[in-house]
Amino acid sequence: MGRDDGVESGYGSEGQPRNRKHAKKENEEEEEEAMMSVERVFEGKEVPSWRQQLTVRAFVVSFVLSVLFSFIVMKLNLTTGIIPSLNVSAGLLGFFFVKTWTKVLEKSGMLQVPFTRQENTVIQTCVVASSGIAFSGGFGSYLFGMSDRIAEQMGNVPGANDYKKLSLPWIIGFLFIVSFLGLLAVVPLRKIMIIDFKLTYPSGTATAHLINSFHTPEGAKLAKKQVRTLGKFFSFSFLWGFFQWFYTAEDGCGFVNFPTLGLKAYENKFFFDFSATYVGVGMICPYIINVSVLLGGIVSWGLMWPLIGKKAGDWYSADLKPSSMHGLQGYKVFISIAMILGDGLYNFCKVLSGTLLGMYRQFKGKNSLPRVASSSPPESPQLSFDDQRRTSLFLKDQIPTSFAIGGYIIIAIISIISLPHIFHQLKWYHILVMYLAAPTLAFCNAYGCGLTDWSLASTYGKLAIFVIGAWAGASHGGVLAGLAACGVMMNIVSTASDLTQDFKTGYLTLASPRSMFVSQVIGTSMGCVISPCVFWLFYKAFKDLGLPTSAYPAPYATVYRSMAILGVEGFSSLPKHCLSLCYGFFAASILINAIRDAVPKKYSKFIPLPMAMAIPFYLGSYFAIDMCVGSLILYVWERINKAKADAFGPAVASGLICGDGIWTLPSSILALVGVKPPICMKFLSRAANARVDNFLKGS
Amino acid sequence: MGRDDGVESGYGSEGQPRNRKHAKKENEEEEEEAMMSVERVFEGKEVPSWRQQLTVRAFVVSFVLSVLFSFIVMKLNLTTGIIPSLNVSAGLLGFFFVKTWTKVLEKSGMLQVPFTRQENTVIQTCVVASSGIAFSGGFGSYLFGMSDRIAEQMGNVPGANDYKKLSLPWIIGFLFIVSFLGLLAVVPLRKIMIIDFKLTYPSGTATAHLINSFHTPEGAKLAKKQVRTLGKFFSFSFLWGFFQWFYTAEDGCGFVNFPTLGLKAYENKFFFDFSATYVGVGMICPYIINVSVLLGGIVSWGLMWPLIGKKAGDWYSADLKPSSMHGLQGYKVFISIAMILGDGLYNFCKVLSGTLLGMYRQFKGKNSLPRVASSSPPESPQLSFDDQRRTSLFLKDQIPTSFAIGGYIIIAIISIISLPHIFHQLKWYHILVMYLAAPTLAFCNAYGCGLTDWSLASTYGKLAIFVIGAWAGASHGGVLAGLAACGVMMNIVSTASDLTQDFKTGYLTLASPRSMFVSQVIGTSMGCVISPCVFWLFYKAFKDLGLPTSAYPAPYATVYRSMAILGVEGFSSLPKHCLSLCYGFFAASILINAIRDAVPKKYSKFIPLPMAMAIPFYLGSYFAIDMCVGSLILYVWERINKAKADAFGPAVASGLICGDGIWTLPSSILALVGVKPPICMKFLSRAANARVDNFLKGS
Repeated sequence: MGRDDGVESGYGSEGQPRNRKHAKKENEEEEEEAMMSVERVFEGKEVPSWRQQLTVRAFVVSFVLSVLFSFIVMKLNLTTGIIPSLNVSAGLLGFFFVKTWTKVLEKSGMLQVPFTRQENTVIQTCVVASSGIAFSGGFGSYLFGMSDRIAEQMGNVPGANDYKKLSLPWIIGFLFIVSFLGLLAVVPLRKIMIIDFKLTYPSGTATAHLINSFHTPEGAKLAKKQVRTLGKFFSFSFLWGFFQWFYTAEDGCGFVNFPTLGLKAYENKFFFDFSATYVGVGMICPYIINVSVLLGGIVSWGLMWPLIGKKAGDWYSADLKPSSMHGLQGYKVFISIAMILGDGLYNFCKVLSGTLLGMYRQFKGKNSLPRVASSSPPESPQLSFDDQRRTSLFLKDQIPTSFAIGGYIIIAIISIISLPHIFHQLKWYHILVMYLAAPTLAFCNAYGCGLTDWSLASTYGKLAIFVIGAWAGASHGGVLAGLAACGVMMNIVSTASDLTQDFKTGYLTLASPRSMFVSQVIGTSMGCVISPCVFWLFYKAFKDLGLPTSAYPAPYATVYRSMAILGVEGFSSLPKHCLSLCYGFFAASILINAIRDAVPKKYSKFIPLPMAMAIPFYLGSYFAIDMCVGSLILYVWERINKAKADAFGPAVASGLICGDGIWTLPSSILALVGVKPPICMKFLSRAANARVDNFLKGS
Repeated sequence: MGRDDGVESGYGSEGQPRNRKHAKKENEEEEEEAMMSVERVFEGKEVPSWRQQLTVRAFVVSFVLSVLFSFIVMKLNLTTGIIPSLNVSAGLLGFFFVKTWTKVLEKSGMLQVPFTRQENTVIQTCVVASSGIAFSGGFGSYLFGMSDRIAEQMGNVPGANDYKKLSLPWIIGFLFIVSFLGLLAVVPLRKIMIIDFKLTYPSGTATAHLINSFHTPEGAKLAKKQVRTLGKFFSFSFLWGFFQWFYTAEDGCGFVNFPTLGLKAYENKFFFDFSATYVGVGMICPYIINVSVLLGGIVSWGLMWPLIGKKAGDWYSADLKPSSMHGLQGYKVFISIAMILGDGLYNFCKVLSGTLLGMYRQFKGKNSLPRVASSSPPESPQLSFDDQRRTSLFLKDQIPTSFAIGGYIIIAIISIISLPHIFHQLKWYHILVMYLAAPTLAFCNAYGCGLTDWSLASTYGKLAIFVIGAWAGASHGGVLAGLAACGVMMNIVSTASDLTQDFKTGYLTLASPRSMFVSQVIGTSMGCVISPCVFWLFYKAFKDLGLPTSAYPAPYATVYRSMAILGVEGFSSLPKHCLSLCYGFFAASILINAIRDAVPKKYSKFIPLPMAMAIPFYLGSYFAIDMCVGSLILYVWERINKAKADAFGPAVASGLICGDGIWTLPSSILALVGVKPPICMKFLSRAANARVDNFLKGS
């Protein structure tokens, strides 16, 4: 899933800096480059034609994995919105499934096509495209933010124009209409970005190296061990989720409410909630992100909210509902929005200027590679054996530009006609303007991602919220128009950068661009069906989905809706002093980012990321503590045995995440059919407990 | 503590069959015998004189360890009465402490006497003697059974003649009076038992081998690693106990009440209670004991009690207090007593006949060694180098027989005069008769223990309960007289077998009998003070100590008192059909034992032990599940890496037991000073939880 910056860089629904994994993989890359040639190793192996790369088994496996990862991504979407890079587990599991499949067939003598790395790349591409929709579909952000449930829990009863009742058919229709434009927009530019510009695409490159290594004998052996580790922790995590389930009869019950650090800390959302998922996420995310999240939690829930809470009755009315945006909740939401926007703006400017600068240099010098955040050594002007072979295969299978442009225009026309029927607040001219700008933005995002590994999909989405929302105006349902526009924009730019990254992976594994494109189209189609269905399961199974007290608070749904309201209605709705605080945090966010970039790396690695700090502002630090536990485990492990931790840490983390993620499938089915857990594990203060004991004795 | 059969064989306060540890050690023994000579290895090392063996540091370390082990034994006494062999941890910790001590001194240049294995044996002897008092002092059985608290909770308000208020002074006085007689009784017989009869003393031999191995270079290295493992699990277990504490605001709170297997199973005491101690105990006890305990739990709490419970109102009055001996509780207690007595009687007859047969053969043939349950190969008639050296050193330091006999008579006179002042129900002629019989019984027990590793101390104690109780008669406080007599008898025979076993260990490690004797005397004195104080801490800190619902139910206190009542008052107090059930289980207990001995070992290892089955009859199976978890962990570990499991399993188990055991020190101090845990982790059914939530909302 590494290539899916929509998802992976979906960290905080925003771009994510290149993580540890990439750094490591880049080292491998360097090592392999030191060995001079990867393709020499594979020289004896025939490269199958692009049609042969697209096997039925690949898509069957992709489908299974898509469902798995859609569940995981959806769970993450709806709990915190922090989505780590799952590319290693996708790669491992894909390899494992097909390897098992081919082994069984081989034994039965029915194997006709051996398992190639091209096929592995096809699976990878398909799974990532499919589960990417679970992120860019906005089920935890804009799409859910449109719903009446979020509108109501934010405290103000919305007009009929300001929400849209969720239902499966229009969600699937919407996704099909908007998810393919991005692909068609970048297809004609693939040669420029991959071969001419030689963009890095760290995640795509890392995935390609992973796949290449799996298909060497030693790589396969290590992969087997990793799969076994993953399987062990998968089972553990699944069973742990199952065990926990029994003790969660009602809200406030179970391990997720364990006041591990005491009741006082629990009230301020500082506790370890025994979530295998977030321990795993903590193991995958770089230390600085985990520390940033914890720091954000301390600043907000440890300091600011208790202090602002004392101003109740002064700064804001004391008898508001706790979830009202005019009270404390408003501070929580808008201050995090300010930090997210500040961080987004900074990075947008940074990446855009890098992109423009890089392109300028490219066209001017032709020879000098843009080197923003790229750590690969400068390529020599004459092509190596690897490059020659890769380039020749990359250029062999063409996709006609006319097909791409024609397709884009046809789909654009279809969606200009149909989208206003789904969202009557969104007018045809809004869509037309977006579709005129989209190819440029898609290219920018794909190019920026290739340079820095940051996908700015959600930043473009936020841009659309403000622009289209303000254009439509409050009285004409600007909130909903803004959110819908965000969805259109996010899907286009996110799939565009996905596909380009896949082209890079394909280039490095000798997979044909055509098979990559087909795989991405099939994967996207799968995702357009799987993701809404998975979301629907959650939505129907957990009636409190989206409420702040729920196990699935879907924080970004509130945040996105609040942004839309802000964009349409201005700052009038904010409680007292909230705006000044927002300005402060907006500025701080930009400043911290600037300092991170200004100081040498030696120091910058100790400077927290504002984006990561913003998440616990709204949610509290419980998941931050989980993540820090994950960090701690990895740190201790690295101390004891660095090599082993590096080789198996990601597998352990993936196992923890996948096991817990897949447990949400049976758990939501149980909730759907009305089977409730039998026991409540409750935590009471001694005084409350004495009263309860008396009460129970009396009754 | 292996030599302390009082404690170690205190399994179920009864003899314990030789455990896995011994079997393993015997293998080592055989191996070392295959290497021909241990003493050749140590030939270069000078043996210090007996005075030099008794160093100050040894007794300082012994004191520290005595306190540690007294806590552990006391906790085990008061929770289930199952006390595993702690000799490995005692040996390891003793070695670790002195080794650290000498190393520090060595570095500071102040070391004058190097650490010898004789000194190690002295520590071992002292610690075992001291913590042995924690068992033979009867704090979980006869002594606590005398108290008003146990008398009252059994449902009938006792007459003033039938209980004795506990207080520290008389307990210490009582222990000092009765604990030294056993030592003096066997001192004159040491040469006969160790050199002439060449008794095996499996535990003593195992301990000697352990100590010998520690003082070879490779042994020391392994010991160091083991100590590190022990330390790790010690810390974990301690911290886990600490963590658990926070959630146990009241009875029924916390992890010890975790309905791991569901609420229904919890009501019948089937649950995993997260006790590190009993997981550790399960790792040390042989599989068959753990399985027996679980089986006993299933038979009793899974089948019998629910069935008998349905007869409430028919077999017994339905409106009795749950703790009344005339109701269901009576069945629980008396059926377990029946099984314990059946098992005790069988083993008493078996060991006694073995003893008599062995002695008969010894005196008749002089040459043929009695071979009941001894697995060492027949010794050659001519003495090996080891035997020569050991014998010469064993005979070097003499203890005059006149000293022993004189001492015995003086202490006997003192106690005949003073004991009736402590227990006025016990007359001087009761005591005189006991002291006339005691040396014979002490010798029998020491001899039997040497052959089979079973100490029958508590069986002799029960004998005393019935004989002296019936003699004194119900109207003259026979219950209390019986319990007091039990104490006198248990202390004598238990210390006697202890000391003889120490002589064996001393013989094998070239420690002088004199230093063994002195160390045992000092250790016993320490124990006579430490154990009552530790008990007093528990008694004062936990006000519900001894109640069936408490965390410290002290099951054997009730069992012993019930036996005394049974002995004095006959079967009249039993509820309906209870007597027939008791006969049945008594017979079954003997039968199962007979079958165990009759069938080949291949099958007998799958036949459960009645003694082990009887414990959960009263307590329920929660600790059985802990122990089975321990078994399972060890089993899996052995499957994965047998060598490592064998080397480090006991260290892990000891760490778990010691850490949790020592946590009881701060926890009882916290209870004493009135610091109560802040949080209650409560488990409610969904229905109850809904009511509680409403109640809490309303209040």
